[in-house]
Amino acid sequence: MRKNYLLTPGPTPLPPQVMEAMSRPIIHHRTPQFQAILKEATEGLKYAFQTKNDVFILSSSGTGAMEAAVINLLSCQDTALVIQGGKFGERWTELCKAYGVNVEVIDVEWGKAVNPVDIEKKLKANPKIKAVFTTHCETSTGVVNDIAAIGAVIKNSDALLAVDAISSLGAIDLKTDEWACDVVVSGSQKGLMLPPGLGFISVSPKAVKLIENSKSPRYYFDLRKAKKALDKMDTPFTSSITLITALREALKMMREDGLENIFIRHKKMADATRAAIKALGLELFAPTASSDVVTAAKIPAGVDGEKLVKTMRDTYDVTIAGGQEELKGKIFRIAHMGFIEEFDIITGISCLEKVLTQMGYKFPLGAGVKAAEEIFLK
Amino acid sequence: MRKNYLLTPGPTPLPPQVMEAMSRPIIHHRTPQFQAILKEATEGLKYAFQTKNDVFILSSSGTGAMEAAVINLLSCQDTALVIQGGKFGERWTELCKAYGVNVEVIDVEWGKAVNPVDIEKKLKANPKIKAVFTTHCETSTGVVNDIAAIGAVIKNSDALLAVDAISSLGAIDLKTDEWACDVVVSGSQKGLMLPPGLGFISVSPKAVKLIENSKSPRYYFDLRKAKKALDKMDTPFTSSITLITALREALKMMREDGLENIFIRHKKMADATRAAIKALGLELFAPTASSDVVTAAKIPAGVDGEKLVKTMRDTYDVTIAGGQEELKGKIFRIAHMGFIEEFDIITGISCLEKVLTQMGYKFPLGAGVKAAEEIFLK
Repeated sequence: MRKNYLLTPGPTPLPPQVMEAMSRPIIHHRTPQFQAILKEATEGLKYAFQTKNDVFILSSSGTGAMEAAVINLLSCQDTALVIQGGKFGERWTELCKAYGVNVEVIDVEWGKAVNPVDIEKKLKANPKIKAVFTTHCETSTGVVNDIAAIGAVIKNSDALLAVDAISSLGAIDLKTDEWACDVVVSGSQKGLMLPPGLGFISVSPKAVKLIENSKSPRYYFDLRKAKKALDKMDTPFTSSITLITALREALKMMREDGLENIFIRHKKMADATRAAIKALGLELFAPTASSDVVTAAKIPAGVDGEKLVKTMRDTYDVTIAGGQEELKGKIFRIAHMGFIEEFDIITGISCLEKVLTQMGYKFPLGAGVKAAEEIFLK
Repeated sequence: MRKNYLLTPGPTPLPPQVMEAMSRPIIHHRTPQFQAILKEATEGLKYAFQTKNDVFILSSSGTGAMEAAVINLLSCQDTALVIQGGKFGERWTELCKAYGVNVEVIDVEWGKAVNPVDIEKKLKANPKIKAVFTTHCETSTGVVNDIAAIGAVIKNSDALLAVDAISSLGAIDLKTDEWACDVVVSGSQKGLMLPPGLGFISVSPKAVKLIENSKSPRYYFDLRKAKKALDKMDTPFTSSITLITALREALKMMREDGLENIFIRHKKMADATRAAIKALGLELFAPTASSDVVTAAKIPAGVDGEKLVKTMRDTYDVTIAGGQEELKGKIFRIAHMGFIEEFDIITGISCLEKVLTQMGYKFPLGAGVKAAEEIFLK
């Protein structure tokens, strides 16, 4: 009789429609029957990406799509600028270095957003920069970067903008075309409400030129192969048939809801979570740039952060996330995205109150839930 | 009221236990709960691979695991020998070339198995060959290569043996350790009875040395990262949680049956299919080296091969495979692996008889089914 609640920034809970699609008998991928599914999923992705560009589906995690971005855009000895303000910003740097790309870094303090002016300065100082790699929502800190402003800066340069939207896509607004995002990468297990296993990547006409000229060695993630296959409504290698079938269902749900309503729902959940955190006397980790995707809060003095997360998960079946790397034991993170709604947040806050109380942290019991309810009533 | 039958060499039909596992609510991957699943799946893979070596699970199709083999073993300007007797042998060559590896090729006539003596000769003639890439069951032709004999030849050289066992693993015998296979790659959607989306790769101690020294650029498929993660019962990037959970179920079924019984079942289905093909007056495409995984038969004169496959699929919901590339329209392929059993084969043959008759091909109706029944009665 244990009931699980998942409030982690990936994976996120699966809607029943997705679970049903995951359990269907499989069909062959090189058939008109599967092509119809792939076509609908691809069109749905364009809707979610808010783009007219091609969006490719890769059988990989989101990191595979990030690798595809780096190796298809740049060659060994090219120069990239990476905005680095958390674990996933650092991943862009690691990827570039693995492929011999020279990296300039803007090191943003963890918990802060990048100042677009700093990007402008770097681009002016080094005209060799061919691509800027940034993170929309930095999942490790909960910070959201202003992609519209970043895009406006980069649009006026020769450089190209690549955005890691793995945790943000389908949760908060990302206008791929309007904001001049040349490449956007994402994954399946966040806002898109699916199990992990799919990576997505959109490419602008400006990006296509770089893809054709990149000298980086590549095969599995070669987007020239992906383009050739997509033109025949196929994937270059065996499609992840089941996940793509479930993707179609998830995107159908999202189109029915409408992106605008989805973003409003996410914002409300984020506001409620932030209000609850404050009402419990806790401090937001990113007070000036907290995303509507995931909220990070500091572990208060005297509380064992790792134990807090473990107790919620192993004793009460409410899974939130702890801190990663340098933030291990110092923060906890509550996701409010995908198939998470109002009463999941209430449950998460209630369980947090319960375990904090058991751990000796003092606050008026019910204060967090009350603060969240006030937001949801609005 | 349409009932689907899948007799393709990947994907193969999903057992109910796998479909049930695919439909479960998701859990987080960095939890003791998921680690227990990953541990059981990894141990099950070692059983299926018949190895004591590490077996890594990659979020990719089988081709991703092939790429992992090439880039982790070899560097640009290294020399490889590729055994090429079909579409998937050619893939090894394409992969090597994409990463600047010099390739020597043994071009085996499509439909024939390689002669291990030819490998011995090549190795003697060119001591620079660091690795031999071969295919266990060449899915495009139905041919099986004698890996035991190939392993015996290579063991006495400095070269290393890498085997594409994507369609063979869990269907026919492959003694990774006993036959000295340094690297074996496989995928989820064949003998392992899962949807596509997972790649597997086993590495011998001899292979580990090359992995440490390879200068090929790599990140997502870097097996040094995979090893580091596996030692902590983790994967380097977000695990394909749902597929790995289903993998555990499939491997549990396989352990309960026992590999030996599974191989006997596959052989019987293959014998029955081959007997049926002959009884219909059709010709095997690979009479001297036909695998127990998939049977390829020549399309008889006067029959439109593509129409045959399409009619079986679109009119009668029985999906078999046609020929690929140069064999398009010239052969059809019936898979007998994974969660396919006796009466699926009877169904496939019966549907083949029906459509061949409708297309004007002459034979004694029922002859194929009778021949298959005779084998199954033994």
